[in-house]
Amino acid sequence: MTRFTTERMYTGRIIDLDVDTVRFPDGSTGQLEMIRHPGAAAVVPFLDPPGSADPRVILLRQFRHAASGYLWEIPAGRLEPGEPPEACALRELREEAGMIAERVLPLTSILTTPGFTDEMIHLFSAHNLSPVPTAREPDEFMEVHEIRWSEVGRRIRGGEITDAKTLAALMFVQCFVMKT
Amino acid sequence: MTRFTTERMYTGRIIDLDVDTVRFPDGSTGQLEMIRHPGAAAVVPFLDPPGSADPRVILLRQFRHAASGYLWEIPAGRLEPGEPPEACALRELREEAGMIAERVLPLTSILTTPGFTDEMIHLFSAHNLSPVPTAREPDEFMEVHEIRWSEVGRRIRGGEITDAKTLAALMFVQCFVMKT
Repeated sequence: MTRFTTERMYTGRIIDLDVDTVRFPDGSTGQLEMIRHPGAAAVVPFLDPPGSADPRVILLRQFRHAASGYLWEIPAGRLEPGEPPEACALRELREEAGMIAERVLPLTSILTTPGFTDEMIHLFSAHNLSPVPTAREPDEFMEVHEIRWSEVGRRIRGGEITDAKTLAALMFVQCFVMKT
Repeated sequence: MTRFTTERMYTGRIIDLDVDTVRFPDGSTGQLEMIRHPGAAAVVPFLDPPGSADPRVILLRQFRHAASGYLWEIPAGRLEPGEPPEACALRELREEAGMIAERVLPLTSILTTPGFTDEMIHLFSAHNLSPVPTAREPDEFMEVHEIRWSEVGRRIRGGEITDAKTLAALMFVQCFVMKT
């Protein structure tokens, strides 16, 4: 498929909005709104080895205007220009959770909502952590919590964890890392 | 937190873009771009009981301009005004996958990317299916596939399934439904 025109409707601080005129697979054309995003990385920080009986992870309790309140999230943020996703994950881990990691492992990558944005978030787990000072943005409000894996599972099952990247990363670990 | 002004920057077919002036938890104020979305529902259609040895589910191979190609997705769509999420899930199951279901069960709800949109997708599983004609939108291009659960797992692990709602719903089933 060929995008043959794109019109920038809004240029913002976090996102840009385009209207693309696109050719669909059947040859017809149409217009689609598309939020352009530079991509992001997110990381599940393990305080104990995943092979431990009930390892602790770090979750953030983060204020989100979109949710009119606080959400449980893993450390995450946008890629800076030219920044590799793994470096971004390590940077956000340091800035938001105040931890550096000796080891970071890729999990998978997600398209958050491909009906209207090209945002892709690369998911990682981080291991062998050491504390450092945090360095948050002025508009970031979050608390750092240490939570046992069994409790993480209870909160997912109970619907208390709703952020898609956080759910995807935690359940990917549960399905494919814990079991090996 | 009180949103004290909101300015509509763009009104679109699928989404609207606002810039909200918000008061943060520390009393400071700032501006946030926010994509307003009516919410959505998505459903994992089971062709065999989840208790079966290796049940088949329906996945769609759907064209997405944002991904410049086709993604594996579960049937999903936006809530119509006043439409309950379960009714939306059943409607999208019928329209996109050509199936009606005798039974639909809630899984959880996700915020797709709360940094810049209030979009929430309510996730379900559907059971006891019967075929009916599909009724797709003119700009929807998708194929219906029947896939074994073991193969679903291989595709998630291999990074072939990237759509966040699809990953979240399938892994929620794996973590919390298959195991009970």
